[in-house]
Amino acid sequence: MTDPSVTAPIEASALATPDADVVGRLRDALGDRVDTAPASLAAARADKSGHAASGLPLAVVRARSVEDVQQTLRIATATSTPVVTRGAATGLAGGANAGRGEIALSLREMDRILEVHADDLLAVVEPGILNADLNAALAEYGLWWAPDPASRAISTVGGNIATGAGGLLCAKYGVVRDAVLGVDLVLADGRLMQLGHRTVKGVTGLDLTSLVIGSEGTLGVIVGATLKLRRLVPGDVCTVAATFADVRTAAEASAAVTASGAQPAIMELMDAASLAAVHALLSLQPPTPGAAQLTIQTDGPAAAAEADAIASVLRATGGTVAVSHDREEGERLLAIRRSMHPAMESLGTALIEDVSVPRSALPAMFDEIARVEREHGITIPTVAHAGDGNLHPNFIFDGQPDQFGVIEAPPYVWAAADDLFRAALRLGGTLTGEHGVGVLKRRWLADELGDDQWELQRQITRVFDPQGILNPGKVFAP
Amino acid sequence: MTDPSVTAPIEASALATPDADVVGRLRDALGDRVDTAPASLAAARADKSGHAASGLPLAVVRARSVEDVQQTLRIATATSTPVVTRGAATGLAGGANAGRGEIALSLREMDRILEVHADDLLAVVEPGILNADLNAALAEYGLWWAPDPASRAISTVGGNIATGAGGLLCAKYGVVRDAVLGVDLVLADGRLMQLGHRTVKGVTGLDLTSLVIGSEGTLGVIVGATLKLRRLVPGDVCTVAATFADVRTAAEASAAVTASGAQPAIMELMDAASLAAVHALLSLQPPTPGAAQLTIQTDGPAAAAEADAIASVLRATGGTVAVSHDREEGERLLAIRRSMHPAMESLGTALIEDVSVPRSALPAMFDEIARVEREHGITIPTVAHAGDGNLHPNFIFDGQPDQFGVIEAPPYVWAAADDLFRAALRLGGTLTGEHGVGVLKRRWLADELGDDQWELQRQITRVFDPQGILNPGKVFAP
Repeated sequence: MTDPSVTAPIEASALATPDADVVGRLRDALGDRVDTAPASLAAARADKSGHAASGLPLAVVRARSVEDVQQTLRIATATSTPVVTRGAATGLAGGANAGRGEIALSLREMDRILEVHADDLLAVVEPGILNADLNAALAEYGLWWAPDPASRAISTVGGNIATGAGGLLCAKYGVVRDAVLGVDLVLADGRLMQLGHRTVKGVTGLDLTSLVIGSEGTLGVIVGATLKLRRLVPGDVCTVAATFADVRTAAEASAAVTASGAQPAIMELMDAASLAAVHALLSLQPPTPGAAQLTIQTDGPAAAAEADAIASVLRATGGTVAVSHDREEGERLLAIRRSMHPAMESLGTALIEDVSVPRSALPAMFDEIARVEREHGITIPTVAHAGDGNLHPNFIFDGQPDQFGVIEAPPYVWAAADDLFRAALRLGGTLTGEHGVGVLKRRWLADELGDDQWELQRQITRVFDPQGILNPGKVFAP
Repeated sequence: MTDPSVTAPIEASALATPDADVVGRLRDALGDRVDTAPASLAAARADKSGHAASGLPLAVVRARSVEDVQQTLRIATATSTPVVTRGAATGLAGGANAGRGEIALSLREMDRILEVHADDLLAVVEPGILNADLNAALAEYGLWWAPDPASRAISTVGGNIATGAGGLLCAKYGVVRDAVLGVDLVLADGRLMQLGHRTVKGVTGLDLTSLVIGSEGTLGVIVGATLKLRRLVPGDVCTVAATFADVRTAAEASAAVTASGAQPAIMELMDAASLAAVHALLSLQPPTPGAAQLTIQTDGPAAAAEADAIASVLRATGGTVAVSHDREEGERLLAIRRSMHPAMESLGTALIEDVSVPRSALPAMFDEIARVEREHGITIPTVAHAGDGNLHPNFIFDGQPDQFGVIEAPPYVWAAADDLFRAALRLGGTLTGEHGVGVLKRRWLADELGDDQWELQRQITRVFDPQGILNPGKVFAP
């Protein structure tokens, strides 16, 4: 099945066109949308993963239109120059980091809402709009777009789609793939394709829209999206907070909630180390040593009854439970969970990981995390979207920033992460629930997919991008 | 991007291996699972589309295991023999029809449920199990698999996945793509791939599971599926039946229900010709001439309140409305809709079509159907899944069965269908909402996708199937 003539990746060092010619062509075509200021080039090396690309990209192209993107890709194809597409650079896997010899293509300025059809529950948007800005505009129509990554105030819709970004609400309201009807994609050679449709149902041809979601810039550049919207949920929001003697019991309690048939909107689990760090950060009274916490929200017309039913399940599992039917009190309870990232930064540098396991395997996965902590002598405070089995173990270490302010995780941290990833796979899990593979997890990808599927997936990328100029070195690079 | 050496489709007449050798090899490997009885070969030519393949297939292989499928495909690849995968042959687009020189590979006997995990809301099944049999087994766990094609009593889960089959409940409970976590796929060369995962969230690599859903046998043979389940919906089912003076008003009323924010489980629209035919079939009093009907069901804890709210919207739109909070009375009302297919057969032969449009375009689409009826002098009774904009126009004609009992639609019917398809595309719609492209719609596929995307999709099939032996002549054959 392999055809070496079309699958060999581009090596920046083997490029035929001198870098200065590439930048010159970009300037001729795009004028002031081509940014080569040193600070811009340095910023384009990194996202929020803690990892940065080697060297500086040739230029940052700040596209303002589909035509700008097409021009950039035509020049990239003509000169065999790699292109790294960027949104707001909030990714956690290094997938949008641009380095030596590469063009960083920013879509952040393409941020318009082109259509909102309340009757059809759809919107058409440009990729650079921030998730929170879109939702603020949709709220005026009584609508929302459900994907809610924790970064939603600062991340773009295009980036959410490119990474398959998740969030707190996925168990009840679905993942990105459930919320996108179509994407407009510019291929490596500059051709524009309209994938998907505007209808709720549609099975005409292959589902390339789903293929592009989560493809991390390897198939094309997403220049527009037709989004499937929901109506704002009427009724109350109720919050249940429960503490348990240890994290395993909390994980068992969350599995019991799922097994009971309740459907919380949010169900977040924090282990003892996470809880202690957040309490310290917020100057709250220290939590009981070893205790873990579940924070659960219900919404919709039956929110109060569901919250009470969930509280009963949690009490039966040994939890100390508080229920609030007040939205603001609930937000205060959830603020502890939302303070997780700053709390981790107070402990040192954190490598934020993202494995996902079947929900019933959550207790076993926490056992594995405790084992990895013990065996590798490292602290791994962990939070989980317990309603969908998605865990974020935070590997804490002391790191020194390089000249660009980027702190790379040292080998002993990666050894512990490797041990943890393999444990997740053994439990029927997957390497990444919502952050993507990027550069950080590419070396484990074949372990999960198998060599045959890894190669098949890479060949599919070559159908879209025969020269391999789209985000080379990410996802499929061994 | 095109490499002619790998994209040229197989022509049965150009095969290197004599047919007898292929059958001999199959018999050596698979023994009594190879069926060459004339009646079996004749039956494998057709599904329920009214279309049949030319000539008879070489053999019907009745696989009982994944290994049987792999053996069949290894022989097919070694001998460059086309393979057509079949489930229960209930398809409506001719996608599973096997003809001259082809192997018909039936998965109907692979019908086991391998795992049910109530805690994780997932099941692992073989592809040949009937949708209704699966749901009967799941009901014992308080669970169900949401896809509900009208054929669910006689269609297989594997066929539902291969076609992206829809049904009555999609607007509220999603399409097949929302209900499958992973598929096991045997490639053309016999290799087995496990695509997807067992977790709710997962963005590791490309989403090949979604790519396979609706791919109609062109990418591989689905030999297993990991299904995402739901808990049985508690509470009542309420039914609202409303009649309107004409179909356009009924369509406007259904759009008003969607726009009101209500979420019916079922919302079915029948035009006057459909209604009259069903009333005649069931010996009911004839309906008011010209009148159209909406039948709506709500479910869940708020079913009664939702039904009453919907009734108000329908009355405001000019409907004569009856509400039933009784489940059995509701089933009697819905029985009129469920009698549609036998009623059509009482009128003549029906070509059952399947376009989908944005929900707000339903009234305009009914105008187009009336125009096509007028201009082509043909009767097109139409029902619609109005909650998701999916219409089934039934083109009625007098046809004569061929020697195999198959009745092909005559050219004037296809001319009318062509006019109707183009109208759906102009309204922002798609060629097929839930039946698939198969052979019946392949000549319109490039009109919707555009030539570039059509070629891109076809090249993707060649990554999975370099020789083009999987279901050749279907979907992508011009």
